[in-house]
Amino acid sequence: MSNLLNFSVAPAVEATEAPPIPRAQAWGVEYLENPTYGELLGLSQGVPKSAPHESVLKALSEFSADPLSAKYGPILGETKLREAYAEEIKIQYQIKNGEGNVKGEDIGITTGCNMAFLTLIMALCPPGKSSVLIPLPSYFNQMMVFSLQSVKPIFIPCDTLNSFKPSISSAREYLNSSDRKTENVKPKMICLVSPNNPTGSVYSHEEIKEWYELAKEFKLALILDETYRDFVEDDNGDRGIPHRLFEEADWRETLVSLGSFSKGYRIPGHRLGSIIAGPALLKHLTTICDCMQICAPRPPQIALSTLLPSLRPDLAESSKALSKRRNLFKEVVNSVEGWNVVSIGGYFAYVSFPSDYTFASSTIGLKRKKLGSEDIAKILATRIGVVTLPGSFFMPPTSDDEVWENDVLKGGEILKEDKWLRFAVANVEDDVVIKLGPRLKEMNKLMGMGE
Amino acid sequence: MSNLLNFSVAPAVEATEAPPIPRAQAWGVEYLENPTYGELLGLSQGVPKSAPHESVLKALSEFSADPLSAKYGPILGETKLREAYAEEIKIQYQIKNGEGNVKGEDIGITTGCNMAFLTLIMALCPPGKSSVLIPLPSYFNQMMVFSLQSVKPIFIPCDTLNSFKPSISSAREYLNSSDRKTENVKPKMICLVSPNNPTGSVYSHEEIKEWYELAKEFKLALILDETYRDFVEDDNGDRGIPHRLFEEADWRETLVSLGSFSKGYRIPGHRLGSIIAGPALLKHLTTICDCMQICAPRPPQIALSTLLPSLRPDLAESSKALSKRRNLFKEVVNSVEGWNVVSIGGYFAYVSFPSDYTFASSTIGLKRKKLGSEDIAKILATRIGVVTLPGSFFMPPTSDDEVWENDVLKGGEILKEDKWLRFAVANVEDDVVIKLGPRLKEMNKLMGMGE
Repeated sequence: MSNLLNFSVAPAVEATEAPPIPRAQAWGVEYLENPTYGELLGLSQGVPKSAPHESVLKALSEFSADPLSAKYGPILGETKLREAYAEEIKIQYQIKNGEGNVKGEDIGITTGCNMAFLTLIMALCPPGKSSVLIPLPSYFNQMMVFSLQSVKPIFIPCDTLNSFKPSISSAREYLNSSDRKTENVKPKMICLVSPNNPTGSVYSHEEIKEWYELAKEFKLALILDETYRDFVEDDNGDRGIPHRLFEEADWRETLVSLGSFSKGYRIPGHRLGSIIAGPALLKHLTTICDCMQICAPRPPQIALSTLLPSLRPDLAESSKALSKRRNLFKEVVNSVEGWNVVSIGGYFAYVSFPSDYTFASSTIGLKRKKLGSEDIAKILATRIGVVTLPGSFFMPPTSDDEVWENDVLKGGEILKEDKWLRFAVANVEDDVVIKLGPRLKEMNKLMGMGE
Repeated sequence: MSNLLNFSVAPAVEATEAPPIPRAQAWGVEYLENPTYGELLGLSQGVPKSAPHESVLKALSEFSADPLSAKYGPILGETKLREAYAEEIKIQYQIKNGEGNVKGEDIGITTGCNMAFLTLIMALCPPGKSSVLIPLPSYFNQMMVFSLQSVKPIFIPCDTLNSFKPSISSAREYLNSSDRKTENVKPKMICLVSPNNPTGSVYSHEEIKEWYELAKEFKLALILDETYRDFVEDDNGDRGIPHRLFEEADWRETLVSLGSFSKGYRIPGHRLGSIIAGPALLKHLTTICDCMQICAPRPPQIALSTLLPSLRPDLAESSKALSKRRNLFKEVVNSVEGWNVVSIGGYFAYVSFPSDYTFASSTIGLKRKKLGSEDIAKILATRIGVVTLPGSFFMPPTSDDEVWENDVLKGGEILKEDKWLRFAVANVEDDVVIKLGPRLKEMNKLMGMGE
């Protein structure tokens, strides 16, 4: 079979790196060929562990059997689902009457949240002429979208000593800089993910509000990717309020909130996401969505449209359970010498590994040298059976000087330390978290610590 | 509520027209408020009339209830479905061994065929630098994609006197022209839809092969949108072979075939489409699809992966029934004075209305003038209760001189006659087709014919 093409592929597409998840999964497979310490601990993927709620499975089954669900539906989603979801948002965000609002007509249903994000980038960012301000580390699928669409990411460095919060002063300085104003590439949006992927960092309302004001000041959109919003906790570990921006009377002029049904309702394979935005923007998103999806899959839309209120207790319970698991995770990891949970929330924890990892060449087959996160993640997976994602998957290559000099804002150099791993804590039960402690100790031994 | 945005929308998106289908549907609603001639005859949408096969509904229901389907699946689709679908393709195209082949690894599963098309355009056409050769009239969703992605369509005029076949000589002349070679915008692909939307024109293997050779010669991709391939008929009205390009040893270097599960299997609401291409291209499409869909919805993929062989008799039967319905349609329409089926196949018929439509101002409230297809479609829907789509929905505006001068190739002027309507014949039973005859006669009366 020929591997050649008679025609050319777009350079931006050629230059976009393949999704990295399969690479990490291959490391796990390598461990399984020689499982020294017992079962593989899969902590790499941000997916829900449990099955969907029984009532959801039942309704999915029922409406999939209905010939009506097999027909095309409205481009931006079933009206009933849009209205029901608006109600859930009002309750979760505790939106008081008369202080802004979220209505069904402010909601668009997409085939998953990645599609929602791509749609937004297509809608606001002319290729080759746009930039997006986004915290670094960044979710790789978003970086891939920038690359595919020839949109330049301007990376706002996160504060490694303060739960990986992005530096608003660096962003403000950049937006005010005179150099920036002469560029052909113009910033179109600030994009935040809270709770964050990959760091797990959860931004407070006050922090998000500051970004909102910055976006307003510079005529930018504020895109909040709230895929993990169902797992924001209050002081008691209960489900909390992600932010209060929907109470702003004019939120529709600046804010776009992206969401997913995959996490809270545990149905990623059914593919449903959401966009909350003003009708003035949704009008344009309708045009794009018509070309991209025609409509999101109907059976899960119809199934959920009547079920959402009844699933509130289930959401609350999942959120509480995950909150407990995160606490357990923190306790377990922080108790191992040299390992530190530097940021945690939602589905993820960002963890620094021991800074003095060196090792004997006889053990690993490599010379003594300082290892980056991909080396460590690979050793941890293939030798110890703990699959995580290296921090480097969420960064530009440390060797790409041009990006680091031009596109990473002030204060970003420290991120080159490349000493973090992303652990997904939602996809496992507590017993896996408990097993993690001894494994990390084995890793320390393997890496020659305490010798 | 404010309708203003604090940020700017991409000019290409602002400039893209909204999907036109809702406009035509609104005409039908207007008729229903005063239904003079009986029920509304909906002949506008290319959707299957019947429910999915019982076994499909059963399997959809079963696998939607399975928690496994709720998890993420492989980016390019379930391996079993890809393999099973390759088998169906081999049978439908009667691919003989040793003469090329189609394997599971040549197939990607997308969330519908619109997504497959958009993915292809993103993969091959850098925005602002690319053009695509495509027959005129063109499917509006494809024209919307070009507009959104700043890709320039070069319109190959169809021969209105020969079943709306696109003029290969015009295309060849354009590709050979010296003017063309100095342009910054380079042709990347030839895109054909067969059976065609909107004209219903079905291209023979020999015709398609000529386009394939032209694409090869000029280092272009040949994109065949074969959404309606299940409804190609042989001389007996049975399901036929769409073309024999898959027998070419090197088809993977030039050909990309798009398909849909929505029509043959009657499940548009479940959203499944397909791309058949070589692995060298699918590698890049994987990257785009990961950012767009992560994976197509899983329950319909899993449901179909075991059912496809058993559905062959159902496909054959649907194809035969539609073939008969098209014949009936042709007979009914051609028997009405001034109405002519000029092209028919797959889901659609392209029909010219009487050239001498003039009318008394007292009847319609308009002055005597020559009316375009949108006027006629609107009158036919709102007054007579027959909803179709006007040919103008599939054309650049006749007033857009720049497009007609620069982007429509030689021989296109005749299309400005704007005297055609698209009838969708798949969404109705024979009794509706029979009712159409008297309605068109009423239309003739209303328009003052024979007075």
